[in-house]
Amino acid sequence: MPIRDTLTPLTNSRTLSRVAIYSTLMGMYALLAIWKEHTRYADFADFPAQIHAALTLVLGWLLVFRTNAAYTRWWEARTLWGSLVNASRNLSAKLFHLVDLPEESRRRMEKLIIAFPRALRDHLRRQPCDRETAKLLDDSEAGAHTPAAIVTRLYAELGRLKSERIVDANELRLIDVELRTMLDVCGACERILNTRIVRSYRTFARQCIALDLATFPWGIVESFRWWTVPLTMITAYFLFGLETVAEHIEEPFGFDEDDLDLDALCRGIETSVTQITNSASGRTRPLAETPV
Amino acid sequence: MPIRDTLTPLTNSRTLSRVAIYSTLMGMYALLAIWKEHTRYADFADFPAQIHAALTLVLGWLLVFRTNAAYTRWWEARTLWGSLVNASRNLSAKLFHLVDLPEESRRRMEKLIIAFPRALRDHLRRQPCDRETAKLLDDSEAGAHTPAAIVTRLYAELGRLKSERIVDANELRLIDVELRTMLDVCGACERILNTRIVRSYRTFARQCIALDLATFPWGIVESFRWWTVPLTMITAYFLFGLETVAEHIEEPFGFDEDDLDLDALCRGIETSVTQITNSASGRTRPLAETPV
Amino acid sequence: MPIRDTLTPLTNSRTLSRVAIYSTLMGMYALLAIWKEHTRYADFADFPAQIHAALTLVLGWLLVFRTNAAYTRWWEARTLWGSLVNASRNLSAKLFHLVDLPEESRRRMEKLIIAFPRALRDHLRRQPCDRETAKLLDDSEAGAHTPAAIVTRLYAELGRLKSERIVDANELRLIDVELRTMLDVCGACERILNTRIVRSYRTFARQCIALDLATFPWGIVESFRWWTVPLTMITAYFLFGLETVAEHIEEPFGFDEDDLDLDALCRGIETSVTQITNSASGRTRPLAETPV
Amino acid sequence: MPIRDTLTPLTNSRTLSRVAIYSTLMGMYALLAIWKEHTRYADFADFPAQIHAALTLVLGWLLVFRTNAAYTRWWEARTLWGSLVNASRNLSAKLFHLVDLPEESRRRMEKLIIAFPRALRDHLRRQPCDRETAKLLDDSEAGAHTPAAIVTRLYAELGRLKSERIVDANELRLIDVELRTMLDVCGACERILNTRIVRSYRTFARQCIALDLATFPWGIVESFRWWTVPLTMITAYFLFGLETVAEHIEEPFGFDEDDLDLDALCRGIETSVTQITNSASGRTRPLAETPV
Amino acid sequence: MPIRDTLTPLTNSRTLSRVAIYSTLMGMYALLAIWKEHTRYADFADFPAQIHAALTLVLGWLLVFRTNAAYTRWWEARTLWGSLVNASRNLSAKLFHLVDLPEESRRRMEKLIIAFPRALRDHLRRQPCDRETAKLLDDSEAGAHTPAAIVTRLYAELGRLKSERIVDANELRLIDVELRTMLDVCGACERILNTRIVRSYRTFARQCIALDLATFPWGIVESFRWWTVPLTMITAYFLFGLETVAEHIEEPFGFDEDDLDLDALCRGIETSVTQITNSASGRTRPLAETPV
Repeated sequence: MPIRDTLTPLTNSRTLSRVAIYSTLMGMYALLAIWKEHTRYADFADFPAQIHAALTLVLGWLLVFRTNAAYTRWWEARTLWGSLVNASRNLSAKLFHLVDLPEESRRRMEKLIIAFPRALRDHLRRQPCDRETAKLLDDSEAGAHTPAAIVTRLYAELGRLKSERIVDANELRLIDVELRTMLDVCGACERILNTRIVRSYRTFARQCIALDLATFPWGIVESFRWWTVPLTMITAYFLFGLETVAEHIEEPFGFDEDDLDLDALCRGIETSVTQITNSASGRTRPLAETPV
Repeated sequence: MPIRDTLTPLTNSRTLSRVAIYSTLMGMYALLAIWKEHTRYADFADFPAQIHAALTLVLGWLLVFRTNAAYTRWWEARTLWGSLVNASRNLSAKLFHLVDLPEESRRRMEKLIIAFPRALRDHLRRQPCDRETAKLLDDSEAGAHTPAAIVTRLYAELGRLKSERIVDANELRLIDVELRTMLDVCGACERILNTRIVRSYRTFARQCIALDLATFPWGIVESFRWWTVPLTMITAYFLFGLETVAEHIEEPFGFDEDDLDLDALCRGIETSVTQITNSASGRTRPLAETPV
Repeated sequence: MPIRDTLTPLTNSRTLSRVAIYSTLMGMYALLAIWKEHTRYADFADFPAQIHAALTLVLGWLLVFRTNAAYTRWWEARTLWGSLVNASRNLSAKLFHLVDLPEESRRRMEKLIIAFPRALRDHLRRQPCDRETAKLLDDSEAGAHTPAAIVTRLYAELGRLKSERIVDANELRLIDVELRTMLDVCGACERILNTRIVRSYRTFARQCIALDLATFPWGIVESFRWWTVPLTMITAYFLFGLETVAEHIEEPFGFDEDDLDLDALCRGIETSVTQITNSASGRTRPLAETPV
Repeated sequence: MPIRDTLTPLTNSRTLSRVAIYSTLMGMYALLAIWKEHTRYADFADFPAQIHAALTLVLGWLLVFRTNAAYTRWWEARTLWGSLVNASRNLSAKLFHLVDLPEESRRRMEKLIIAFPRALRDHLRRQPCDRETAKLLDDSEAGAHTPAAIVTRLYAELGRLKSERIVDANELRLIDVELRTMLDVCGACERILNTRIVRSYRTFARQCIALDLATFPWGIVESFRWWTVPLTMITAYFLFGLETVAEHIEEPFGFDEDDLDLDALCRGIETSVTQITNSASGRTRPLAETPV
Repeated sequence: MPIRDTLTPLTNSRTLSRVAIYSTLMGMYALLAIWKEHTRYADFADFPAQIHAALTLVLGWLLVFRTNAAYTRWWEARTLWGSLVNASRNLSAKLFHLVDLPEESRRRMEKLIIAFPRALRDHLRRQPCDRETAKLLDDSEAGAHTPAAIVTRLYAELGRLKSERIVDANELRLIDVELRTMLDVCGACERILNTRIVRSYRTFARQCIALDLATFPWGIVESFRWWTVPLTMITAYFLFGLETVAEHIEEPFGFDEDDLDLDALCRGIETSVTQITNSASGRTRPLAETPV
C-alpha cells in the first residue's frame, strides 16, 4: 500500500498532480511569512491564529456539504446509467424474444437501442452525435435533441407495428415501461448537467478557502517557524484537492479523471443487446426442441 | 480562480452584495466595542468569550440543519420540474407517434401540454396566468387553479377520444401515467411552496444569530484589539450569508438569484414538445418507406 | 429582522413563550449557585466544569438525532397529505371527465372524496368524525375506522358501476391507483401517529438534559460569577426549546403550533375537487364545440 | 417531567435498569482507581487523559454510526409492517367489495388474510405458527415457510376463481398488487432479521467501549478525585445504554422493550379486515337503495 | 461480553487479526521515536503535535465519508439480493399456482429460476458458472453474460407459451414484473461491482492515513514517553481497521469476511422456490375439496 496508493497518484493522476503543484506554490507563499519573521517587521501583521479556529468550522462544513452534494450527484448519475443498462437489456429481451417482429423491424430497432446511449453520451458532452447514429435519423433530428428523436422513432415504429397488429396492446405496455425509462434517464441526466449546486454555496466555499489559505502562514509562523511550509502545503493540498474533485464530479459526464466512464457503459450496453438479440433461445424453434 | 470567484460575487451578486453591506454594518458596530476599551468603562461589560463556545455549537448545528433542509427542498423542486420535462416528452411521443389522433385534437393537446409548465410557473409565483394560456381555458378556469384546469381538459379530451373509439383502453393507460405525473408534480411543488421549514427552528436560528453577533465583539475585544473588526465582519458575512441563502432556496420558485430558472425550463419543454411533435418519423409514412 | 424575528416569538408563540418561562425558572435556580458562593459553603459542591464537556457531546448528539428523526416524520406526514391532495385531484379528474357516470353516482362519489381528508383528520386526532361525514355512512361504520369505511364505500360503488357495465375494467384500474393511494396515506399517517421514536432514546435525551441543567450553574459559577444567570438561561432556553419542538413535531397531527395545518389542507382538497368536478370542460359537450 | 421521565425508567424499564446496574458496577471499579491514589502506587499507571480525547472521537463516531444504522432498520421494519396493514386493507376492500366472490371462497380468503401477519410474526420470532394458522394449511406447509405457504394458497385460490371465470384478468391484476406487497414485506423483514450490521463495526464499537471504560477512571482520578466515581458511572451509563439499545432495535422483531409491538399490529390488521369485510356497503344491495 | 466480543475477534477474524498485526508493526515503528529521545538527536525532528489536530479533522471526515459510502453500498447490495428472493418467490407462486403450465415447461422454468441467483453470484465473482447452470444453456450463452441469458430464456419460454395460448396477455404482465426485477437486480449489482467510490477520495484517505501515522509517534513522544507505543498501536488499529473494512464492504460480493453470504442466499432461494412449487395447494385439486 504505502507507495502505490499514496505517492504515485501525485504523478500519475492528472487531477492530483495539478493539485500538488498548487500546494507547492502555496508552500513558496508560506516562505514569505517566514522571511518576514527575520526582518524588522517581525511583529507586524501577525494574524491571530484563532481566526482559523472560526474559519475552519465554517470551511469544514462547507467542504463537507459540497463534497456530499457532489458525490450524491455523481452516484445518482451512475445509477441512472445503470437503469439505462437494465432498460436496454429488458427492452431487447422483450422485443426480440417475447414478441415476434418482422426481421426488418427487428434490425432497425436493435440499431436504435444501441444508438441511444451513444447519442445520450454525446448530448451530455455537448458534442454532435457520431456518424452511425446520424445515419439512423433525419438531418433535422440529428441536429436537435438526438436522444429524444431516437425514442420518438421507437414509439413511431411501435405505433406502426401495432396498427399492423404485429404487437398487441398488452405487449405495447410491457415495452412502454422500458422506453419511458430511457427518456426518464435522459431527462434526469440533463437535470444533473444543467443545474449545478446552489451558486452562492460554491462562492462561499471558495471565499472561505481563499481567506483561510491567504492568512494561514501568517497566523502560525510565530509558533511553528519552518514547520510553516510543510503545514501550509498539506493544508493547501487537501483544501484544493477536495474542492477540485467536488468541482469535477459535480458534473460527471465530462472527461475529467473521476468522471463516469460513459464509453465503457456504451460498449457494455452494445455487447448486452447484441448477445440477447442473437441468443439461440429464439422462439423460432418449436417448443418440443428446447432442452428440458 | 482567486479574484473572479471570491471577490466579484460581492459586487455582481444581488444576494451577496447585500450580505456584504450588512457585514460592513456589523464591522462598524464592532468599533463601538473597541472604543469602549479606550474609555474608563474598559472593564465593564466584557462578555466572557466562552459564551460563544456554547452558542457556536448550537448555532452551527441550527445553520447546518436549516441549510440541509433548504437545499433538499431546492433539489427536490428541481427534480420535480425534471419529471415534468420527462412527462411532457413522453406524453408527446405517445400522443403524437403511438396513437393516431385527428389533426384538430392533436393541435389542441400540444397547446395544452406546452401551456402546463407556464401555468404551473405562474401559479407557484402567485401571478395570473399569461394570455396565451388564458385563451385555452374558460374564464372561470383561468381565474382558479390553472394547472389543474389544464390537466382536467386533457382528461376530458381523452374521454372524448375514447368514447369515439380513437384511443383504446390500453393506450389510455399509457397516457394516464404521464398525466398523473403532471398533477403530482403540481401538488408536490405546492407542498414545497406552502409548507416552510418548522417555524420554531427558523426562530431559534435567528435568535441564535442575533445573540451571537450582538455579543461577539464585546467578548473578543480584550484579546484581539483591532482584529475585532475584520473578525466580526467575517463572522457576520458567513452567518448572514448562510441564513439568507437558506431563506431564498427554501422557496425556490421566486425571483431570487439562487432560485430555479423556471423560465428556461418552460422554454426547454416547449422546444422538446415541438420537436417531438414535428418529428419526421410520424406514422403517416408507411412502414416500407422508413430507412432500415 | 432583529426584533420581529427574535423577540416577538417569545410572547406571540405559545410554544416559545412557555419555553422562555421555563428558562427563566432555570435562571432563578442559577441564583442559588451564586448565593452559595457568598456563604461559607463556597468551596463545597463545585462540580468540575469538565463534566459538561463530556455530557455536552452526548447531549448534543442525542438532541440532533431526536430533532432529525422528528423533522423527518413531520415532513413525511406533510408529503403524505400532499399525496392525498394529488390523489383526490386525479381521482376527480378521472371519475368526472374520463368516464361517464350517472348523475346520482357522481354526486355520491364527490361527497365521499371530499369527506375522506376530513375523516382522516378526525381519525388522526382521535375525534369522532363530523356530522356531514357521519351522514354518508352507516352508524356502525361511523363509529369504527371511518377512513377505511369511506374507501370501502368507494370500492363498493365502483363494483356496482362495473357490474352495470358503466365503468370498464381498464378504467377501473386507472381509478384503483388513486384509491390505493388514499388508503396507503391513511395507513402511513397511523404509523407516524402510533409509533413514536424509540422510547429509550427519548429517556436518554431527557435524562441528559436534566443532568446537564441541574449541574450546569454549580460547575460554572466559580469562573463566571453573575454571568452564570444569563448563561444558564440561554442554555436552558435552547435545550428546552429543541426538546419541546421535537416532541411536538414528532406527532404532527395535533393542535400544537408547529403541527401541520390539516384544516387548511382539507379545505384545499375540497376546493380542488369542487373546481375539477364543476369544470366546463365536461364531456357532455360534443367534440366539435370545444375551442381549438 | 423531571421525575417521571428521568428517574422512573431506571426502575421501570427492563433495559435501562439493567444498564443502570452495569454502570453501578463500573462505579465500583472506579473506586479501585481512587484507592490506588491513596497507596504508595499513586504515581503508577496514571493513564494520560489525552488518550481519551482520541478514543472519544472514534468511539463517538462508531456509536453514532451504529445507532443510526440500527434506528434506520427499526423504522424500516415499522414501515414494512405499515405496508402490510395497507395491503391487508386494500386486499379486503378489493376482494369483498369490488369482485363478487362465492361465500365459501370469501370466508377462506378472509381467514388467510388475517392469518398472514400472525404467521409472519411467528416466522420472524422463529416460533412455530399458532394452531389457528396451522389448521388453514397442510402439515407439510405449516412446518416450512408459513407466510409463503399462505400467499401461495391465496394465489392458488385466485387461479381457481379465474379458471371458473368468477374473477377476470383485470381484477386479478388489481389483487396481485396487494399479494406481491405481502410477500415483499415478508422478504424484507427476513433481510432485516438475517443480516445484521457489518460484524467488524460491531466489534470495533465494543472494543472501543471496553478500552475506553477500562482506562477511564485511571486517567481522570488524579484531577477529579472523588468525582471520578459519578463521572465513570454517567459515562458508563450512556455508553452501555446506547450500545444496548442499538443492539436491541437492530433486530426489532423480538421481545425486547424497544422492539416493535407486533402483537398489536396483528390485532389491528384483524380488526380492520373484519370491519371492511362486514361493512354494510356490500354490493348485494342494489344501486337504488344506497343513500345519496 | 468483555472477552468474547473484544479480544477473540483479534485471533478469530481473518480481517481483524491482519489489522492487529499491522498495528503491532506500527507499535515497533513507534519504538524508533522513543529510542531517538534517548540519543543526542532528542531535540531533532519533533513534529509539532498540532499538525495532528488539523490532519485529524480531515482524516476523520474522510474516513466517515468513506465508511458511510461503503456501508450504503453494502446494504444496497443486500437489499437487491432481498428483492431477488422476493421476485423468485413471487414468480414461482404466479407461474405454478396462478397459471396452468404444461408439466415440461414447468420443470424447465423452475430450473431456470433456481439457476438465476447462482449464475448471478458467479457472474459477480467473475467465476465461470457452475455445471448445472451450464447444462441449461447453450455453450455460447454460458460463456457470455449468463444471468441475462437465463432471463432471455425465460422470456422466450413465455413468448412460446403465449403464442400457444397457454398464458394470456394479462398473466404475461403479472409475470413480466418479476422478470424485470431479476434483470434490474443483476444490473444494479454490476453497477456496485464495477464503479467503486470516486478514486481521488480513496487516494486522499490513504494519503491522510499514511501521513498521520508516519508522523504520529514523533509528535507525541516528548509528552507521552512510553505511552507512545500503545497510543500508536491503538490509533493504527482503528485507522487501518476502518479503512480495511471499508475497502472490503465497498465490493460486497467477494469472499471477504464481512461480504454478503451469497451462497446462503442462493440456497434460501432454492428452498423457497422448491417449497412453493411443490405446495399441496396446487390448482389441480377441484374447488370443493379444499378445506374452508
